[in-house]
Amino acid sequence: MTQDPLVIFTPSGKRGRFAVGTPVLTAARQLGVDLDSVCGGRGICSKCQVSPGYGDFSKHGVTVQPGALSDVNAVEERYDRVRGLKPGRRLGCQATVQGDVVIDVPPESQVHKQVVRKAASARVMTMDPATRLYYVEVDEPDMHSPTGDLERLKRALADQHGIEVDRLRCDLPVLSKLQPALRKGKWTVTAALHKGHADAHERILDLWPGYWEGRLYGLAIDLGSTTIAAHLCDLRNGEVKASAGVMNPQIRFGEDLMSRVSYAMMNPGGDAEMTRTVREAINTLAVEIAAEGEIEPSQIMETVFVCNPVMHHLLLGIDPVELGQAPFALATSDSMSLDARELDLSAINPAARVFVLPCIAGHVGADAAAVALSEEPYKAEVLTLIVDVGTNAEILLGDKRRVLACSSPTGPAFEGAQISSGQRAAPGAIERVEIDPVTKEPRFKVIGSDLWSTEAGFAEAVGASGVTGICGSGIIEAVAEMRAAGIVDTSGLIGSADQTGTPRSVAEGRTHSYLLHDASEDGGPRISVTQGDIRAIQLAKSALYAGARLLMDEMGVDEVDKVILAGAFGAHISPKHAMILGMIPDCPLERVSSAGNAAGTGARIALCNRSARADIEARVRDIHKVETAIEPRFQEHFIAANALPHATAPFVELRKIVTLPEVSFNSGGEDGGGRRRRRRG
Amino acid sequence: MTQDPLVIFTPSGKRGRFAVGTPVLTAARQLGVDLDSVCGGRGICSKCQVSPGYGDFSKHGVTVQPGALSDVNAVEERYDRVRGLKPGRRLGCQATVQGDVVIDVPPESQVHKQVVRKAASARVMTMDPATRLYYVEVDEPDMHSPTGDLERLKRALADQHGIEVDRLRCDLPVLSKLQPALRKGKWTVTAALHKGHADAHERILDLWPGYWEGRLYGLAIDLGSTTIAAHLCDLRNGEVKASAGVMNPQIRFGEDLMSRVSYAMMNPGGDAEMTRTVREAINTLAVEIAAEGEIEPSQIMETVFVCNPVMHHLLLGIDPVELGQAPFALATSDSMSLDARELDLSAINPAARVFVLPCIAGHVGADAAAVALSEEPYKAEVLTLIVDVGTNAEILLGDKRRVLACSSPTGPAFEGAQISSGQRAAPGAIERVEIDPVTKEPRFKVIGSDLWSTEAGFAEAVGASGVTGICGSGIIEAVAEMRAAGIVDTSGLIGSADQTGTPRSVAEGRTHSYLLHDASEDGGPRISVTQGDIRAIQLAKSALYAGARLLMDEMGVDEVDKVILAGAFGAHISPKHAMILGMIPDCPLERVSSAGNAAGTGARIALCNRSARADIEARVRDIHKVETAIEPRFQEHFIAANALPHATAPFVELRKIVTLPEVSFNSGGEDGGGRRRRRRG
Repeated sequence: MTQDPLVIFTPSGKRGRFAVGTPVLTAARQLGVDLDSVCGGRGICSKCQVSPGYGDFSKHGVTVQPGALSDVNAVEERYDRVRGLKPGRRLGCQATVQGDVVIDVPPESQVHKQVVRKAASARVMTMDPATRLYYVEVDEPDMHSPTGDLERLKRALADQHGIEVDRLRCDLPVLSKLQPALRKGKWTVTAALHKGHADAHERILDLWPGYWEGRLYGLAIDLGSTTIAAHLCDLRNGEVKASAGVMNPQIRFGEDLMSRVSYAMMNPGGDAEMTRTVREAINTLAVEIAAEGEIEPSQIMETVFVCNPVMHHLLLGIDPVELGQAPFALATSDSMSLDARELDLSAINPAARVFVLPCIAGHVGADAAAVALSEEPYKAEVLTLIVDVGTNAEILLGDKRRVLACSSPTGPAFEGAQISSGQRAAPGAIERVEIDPVTKEPRFKVIGSDLWSTEAGFAEAVGASGVTGICGSGIIEAVAEMRAAGIVDTSGLIGSADQTGTPRSVAEGRTHSYLLHDASEDGGPRISVTQGDIRAIQLAKSALYAGARLLMDEMGVDEVDKVILAGAFGAHISPKHAMILGMIPDCPLERVSSAGNAAGTGARIALCNRSARADIEARVRDIHKVETAIEPRFQEHFIAANALPHATAPFVELRKIVTLPEVSFNSGGEDGGGRRRRRRG
Repeated sequence: MTQDPLVIFTPSGKRGRFAVGTPVLTAARQLGVDLDSVCGGRGICSKCQVSPGYGDFSKHGVTVQPGALSDVNAVEERYDRVRGLKPGRRLGCQATVQGDVVIDVPPESQVHKQVVRKAASARVMTMDPATRLYYVEVDEPDMHSPTGDLERLKRALADQHGIEVDRLRCDLPVLSKLQPALRKGKWTVTAALHKGHADAHERILDLWPGYWEGRLYGLAIDLGSTTIAAHLCDLRNGEVKASAGVMNPQIRFGEDLMSRVSYAMMNPGGDAEMTRTVREAINTLAVEIAAEGEIEPSQIMETVFVCNPVMHHLLLGIDPVELGQAPFALATSDSMSLDARELDLSAINPAARVFVLPCIAGHVGADAAAVALSEEPYKAEVLTLIVDVGTNAEILLGDKRRVLACSSPTGPAFEGAQISSGQRAAPGAIERVEIDPVTKEPRFKVIGSDLWSTEAGFAEAVGASGVTGICGSGIIEAVAEMRAAGIVDTSGLIGSADQTGTPRSVAEGRTHSYLLHDASEDGGPRISVTQGDIRAIQLAKSALYAGARLLMDEMGVDEVDKVILAGAFGAHISPKHAMILGMIPDCPLERVSSAGNAAGTGARIALCNRSARADIEARVRDIHKVETAIEPRFQEHFIAANALPHATAPFVELRKIVTLPEVSFNSGGEDGGGRRRRRRG
């Protein structure tokens, strides 16, 4: 008696013997091989494409003869004719096993496919979306055995796709579409089924008559205090179809988080007003991004939010007042799985599901959790410091043994606010600065041009609107370069023209400013770095540094092995200048990297992979939170960090980069007061 | 070494040994004794009252000495002083075991208490409500171990009440109340938790600061084509606090179900219009019944609906068009568990849960399922026929071995519609009729008076509005009495005055009518039973009888052992007259009973007992449906049943009641045409 043919799947290596005539898809399912299928083996969806190999596969111990699979059949021929099949490809549901065979499942035919993220740090992302499409053929109703159309659809999902349907949910708006859809589709229908990572049962989110060719999309939303940024992702392969951002319209209720909390405290119904406002903005953003991605907004079936705790509460419709005062109690810290309609997200599919990442603490939100999910400090071999710089900086420190987290109130200076010539990062804003240590003359680049200001053609490149101001990364470089060029001393004082040797030092009352750019003759702006600007940057960087130091204290270390700068802003900071300023603890420069918008990346990971949701929920519980607001050492570090560069950390590495002049203009009169007013509570 | 004291609970008989000092509530919980507690043993809620017995309990093998429980403590003394404790009662959470003791748990201290239904057929109903109150003390937030208030509430529910909280749900509106409630209640709160019979996890429906004294209520709603009737029930003990009904305002879209289906087919958006209308009426009814029951509408946390399939679909917002044509496919046949807000039931608690009983088939709805739940034919020892009479009659036949169901389109004649002097059951309507077989003179009673029309004081009792018409039970008695008095012959013809010997036989065109009441001299109505009325009743009763016969055929029987007349109308039908008419198959008269509003009772059972919900779901799957619309024998039975009394059934029993004269007025000219037009499809 001859044995049944041996079937080996690659890349999984799973193998088994199957009777002659067994469809490849059936063999794959029985072996638990990850081979996709929307139509359940009806030759409609073509998701189950495989590549049989022929010849000698000695490492698998088989030789595959021609004819190991059945001949290409009519369904496959028609598919190839109409849509085109790559050479050598077969439909797994049509090709049947005839002899020993090695079958490769290409990445695009895997449900849990791994895709390479298109980002600076190319990384593999595994797809495991919570919402998937299923095509089914449903029994027609029978008067002699009367069951509802929904019950017959459930049976079809169970029989044809192995879905556990006992408590499958179908909300009323979808149920009301079922009968017309089944009749229009001649008793076939495509259903979008959702099963979240913590759900015991599937639910039907939407239905289409017959086999629906469309795709499902998700929105990964980074809901910041200032900006709402979204990525529109294809839920099959994680591809980013479009990205868009809008200003957070809550800004009119307060520039920073604490002023929004104050607004809610002072104005009855103010929290509801801010909730309504931000939800409207998200709806607008969803419509825009769908248009940009050329899809219907109703194809958006999933949304993931990452945000800080105050934005988190305002998004959910919870008064954030408790977040404005000790003990900074969150209404809820766990992740949330919601219906889009609970958040009034009417622009997307009404049945869309929403996942909100968990918060780490009252000051360390779901955005920090998203950064953790993206950068995975809990898997790091070396001690890693992750700094997500924004109006509040979220700081994570740790490795695979232990991770700490805190947030630090840096204020908006790093984003160009509270800076005399500050502006948001937009065309015309100075983003790079160099100052010649000898001549003390500056040159700079503005957003929208690759030319230095001293190069020919700069004026033309910048155009009529000209140089408009200085953005966050620009002010950091300007202050750092001023320090390196000896225009600013260790205490942060700008020297007079006499002291610095440049007429760009201009007296302003009792202090001085440094003139970076003067277009006033042409009616343009005079862009200076004032003493106030330096003080604002000093406060911000001291807060950032103090937060990092506090975590290092808690961890019992004086150095870190690796620094990751995250955040839209973090991506543009020059590590060298950050270190000159003393924003971050010293670390070999080559070990400082930028992760780009790590919170947004974390949101995308959670959008595409439900097991990542479960993972971050568990990880967050293990992250130890350090509350800066009640920690006396934070104040000590904050004050100690005020100097440029600060005095507390070894400065060995930095000396390799640039020799800082040992100047001091301190006449004893001026000093940056009001450091303490930045504390919360 | 002495043994620990023996504790025996009655009535359960559960027993165990516990260390001296163990609180009675703790002992009860460890033994799985059903002893209630809302506050989790804090001496606040007083739900855990028990009655210790002292003396000789020989049947339990113990003698209980004085001092078997600890002395009454301060908490009990204060409770007794403030609220009063029945003599001998102790608080189970305060009293501790000191020696062998027998402890009785009175019915009101049991969660799953059994209550006697206040209805004609007194029956025991077991409480097992899906929504219960829990009082908890919640930890205050701690900055060093930051968790959300919700997470600390969950932990408290788990620790203090053993609730499984891992996936406990809390919708956003409730979550937004949590922080203020905890602070107002000084870190104590009362939560209403819901766990439906098919739910894997609890959900928080509402919250109150501190220990909330209020009670939770539920609405059992019988949503009929004509009337919406509701009972407001206390979810602790099932007590009916109030009952109310309103007309179904959908009547303006069509008197009967098929005209409403037609309205939906003919008018785009017509189904949505009817859905909106009925939901508004339910909201109005909820507000009225809450006012009558002197509770806040927000205390209504559960609602159960029973209704026919068309009302079912219109309630849920599903176009009922498929129910108007073969194969009469339901969108869904299973039970539904919903949020009140999904049905726009804004008048009650926004988080209230809704349970809709399952439908049996496209013509046999959740109302029939509720009748089955109430009357339990599937537990019957003898073959039981249950007839729920309405515009459609739902008919169940079976016993513990097998149950069959069908519906029959009786039309509205039994409800007084399509009857010349017909009216709804309301004061002034004739409801009882007797006709002297010798004089052929009638006497009658009207709703609102106990006097016969021939008795002294009748006119005064009826009052100024007088006799206004004839209701469903009245027309049935009138026609039956006319038959018994020989005024109507077997074929249903009314004889002329010559033939009947009474001037009350009045010629009307080619036919005759019988004058029941004439107030025309005083400007009042002339109330007659016309030949058309007889024909309408014949059609209705033939349909009802044919449905019953069809089920008997299917069951292979010629007789039934027991008949239950159900429905608000069924409760008022005289079994004798129903049998004279041939509405129901013959059966010894003493085995014909009325179950009152059995559908409403079924709704109340499902409201108070979640395991009854699971039970009826399972039972409904086993009920075999017979579709009258496609069954040729239904037509045969229908035609054969037209006679008064019908010719197909033995008439032995009935002859004991009344001797029917063998008269025939048939001149061959007139006959009830149009019988066939009443068929659906």
